[in-house]
Amino acid sequence: MSMSKIPLEYAIGVDIGGTNTKCGIVNRRGEVLQYEALSTPEYETPQAFVDAMCVRLNLMIDKVGGDELIKGIGIGAPNGNYYTGTIEYAPNLRWEGIVPLADMVSERMNLPTALTNDANAAAVGEMQYGAAKGMRDFITITLGTGVGSGIVANGQIIYGHDGFAGELGHTIIRPGGRKHWSTDLYGSLEAYASATGVAVTAREMLQKEPEKQSILRKYQLEELTSKNVFDCAMQGDEISQEVYKFTGQILGESLANFVMFSSPEAIILFGGLIKAGKLIFEPTIEHMEKNLLPIFKNKVKVIKSDLHEADAAILGASALVWEMKQSHASL
Amino acid sequence: MSMSKIPLEYAIGVDIGGTNTKCGIVNRRGEVLQYEALSTPEYETPQAFVDAMCVRLNLMIDKVGGDELIKGIGIGAPNGNYYTGTIEYAPNLRWEGIVPLADMVSERMNLPTALTNDANAAAVGEMQYGAAKGMRDFITITLGTGVGSGIVANGQIIYGHDGFAGELGHTIIRPGGRKHWSTDLYGSLEAYASATGVAVTAREMLQKEPEKQSILRKYQLEELTSKNVFDCAMQGDEISQEVYKFTGQILGESLANFVMFSSPEAIILFGGLIKAGKLIFEPTIEHMEKNLLPIFKNKVKVIKSDLHEADAAILGASALVWEMKQSHASL
Repeated sequence: MSMSKIPLEYAIGVDIGGTNTKCGIVNRRGEVLQYEALSTPEYETPQAFVDAMCVRLNLMIDKVGGDELIKGIGIGAPNGNYYTGTIEYAPNLRWEGIVPLADMVSERMNLPTALTNDANAAAVGEMQYGAAKGMRDFITITLGTGVGSGIVANGQIIYGHDGFAGELGHTIIRPGGRKHWSTDLYGSLEAYASATGVAVTAREMLQKEPEKQSILRKYQLEELTSKNVFDCAMQGDEISQEVYKFTGQILGESLANFVMFSSPEAIILFGGLIKAGKLIFEPTIEHMEKNLLPIFKNKVKVIKSDLHEADAAILGASALVWEMKQSHASL
Repeated sequence: MSMSKIPLEYAIGVDIGGTNTKCGIVNRRGEVLQYEALSTPEYETPQAFVDAMCVRLNLMIDKVGGDELIKGIGIGAPNGNYYTGTIEYAPNLRWEGIVPLADMVSERMNLPTALTNDANAAAVGEMQYGAAKGMRDFITITLGTGVGSGIVANGQIIYGHDGFAGELGHTIIRPGGRKHWSTDLYGSLEAYASATGVAVTAREMLQKEPEKQSILRKYQLEELTSKNVFDCAMQGDEISQEVYKFTGQILGESLANFVMFSSPEAIILFGGLIKAGKLIFEPTIEHMEKNLLPIFKNKVKVIKSDLHEADAAILGASALVWEMKQSHASL
């Protein structure tokens, strides 16, 4: 065997968020070599945004040695459709209707470009660089401002017939329960296990037991955040810890449903909520196990993401590039 | 182009049920050419059962012209594991522990043999011969004595990491709700949308409104069956129709959750419950749509199975044969 070198190749990862868009150049090992960011809502039209973004991409590309080293561009975006490379009616972006973003970027950059929603990108990132390396069946769940998810079965992301599969945050776990502030659905997982949901639960608990002492009461009820709940729980506050127990119960019951759907080897959790460590993991695992059929019990790992949070979105988007088949990417 | 014939090839389908095992020889078009059956619980050991079954398979094979025309054997069985070809701890079979049935049959018959659970087999049957022909993303749900399901995404059955994915009947849709008679889970779909569940709902409704007239009252409360509910509903009985409304609501809410998981093109329903036609389809679709995110609304077809019910189990099992890759089948 000759000592041939692995070809030096990089992927560009772009994470489009409601506030910021982060861009990076990433190597096969998941190291972010170059980094740029821009404000998403500053650009009135998708074209103006793409122009501004591509200036930054070219800057980064020059720094790593030119575009012959770049295999492609991966984009994670809210309501991103993998099949069409479009962003469709994203509620937290100012561009209306259907935006053919992947095509716009690949025309401008002359590089194959794949696009999916941010949660699916996170799952591909875990498979490529993170806790799901080598797994063919797993689910990632992001517990942040919202609850996002990416599902991998048979080694492939499940995109569904229309490219929108994997909206586990919007599955109903308390029929007739808490109304979601933006979807208007009742009792969805996101209404409870998101940062907003945790704050709502804390407010409800404080109001339900007005006599009970809690250091949470030092905050204005309406301004209470999930961060406050975390801080107080760490200081041993009972109501704050109850909030995590309740949230973990609902999350665990939801995970049981997901396990009976796709029987994953692992469920990988990510995002602000899991900073609470065993306060959230223990009730989650307890209630997941309690609601599983015997054939699924004590089999599914519930683990933390391996990816560094600041880089995770870029890494996930960049990982789309390594997965690229020409047929799936615009060029 | 030469006028070469399509090779004449047959598949054997075997459906192992708690009461009967049905065997058939099926052609590519899904026509059952030969048929045999045997009593499952009559055989004390798996070996005795396999011996008796293989006698019947050989009888059928002789009638269609010998085993060089047989591509393989597909078996649908409760708790069947596709990866290992084993039946594992099936509660309604008398054989205990893990039975390596696919290996036993393929050794005896010298034909490649694939095995999966009956619900997954039904999904493969719909894809091969039925309502899902040409679809790459769909879910089949059998609403019979129990509630079974098979999930296809990216054109492949989702088996999960252990071979047991697709237990949608056991997902929880009413947390803390009705206790299931055999799993002891609370509020699972099967506790409501199975034949047993329908009978329980009818009993509950009759007891809740003891003054309300219903022709259901001509039956002994404890002996009431889903068939009675069907008959009375067809005669316009109000409580019986309410039973379907309630069952459809719970089924529809569950379907919404499944759609947000895998975004299927269609959900194909099968089994006794759907005989009630629009009495069950209307509330099911209504409550599914009501619980979907806008991006999923009015997209998913909820349809009846195309397969003839008497043959469906054999067809589903036989369809495993056309899907066979050597790596998945025991030989």
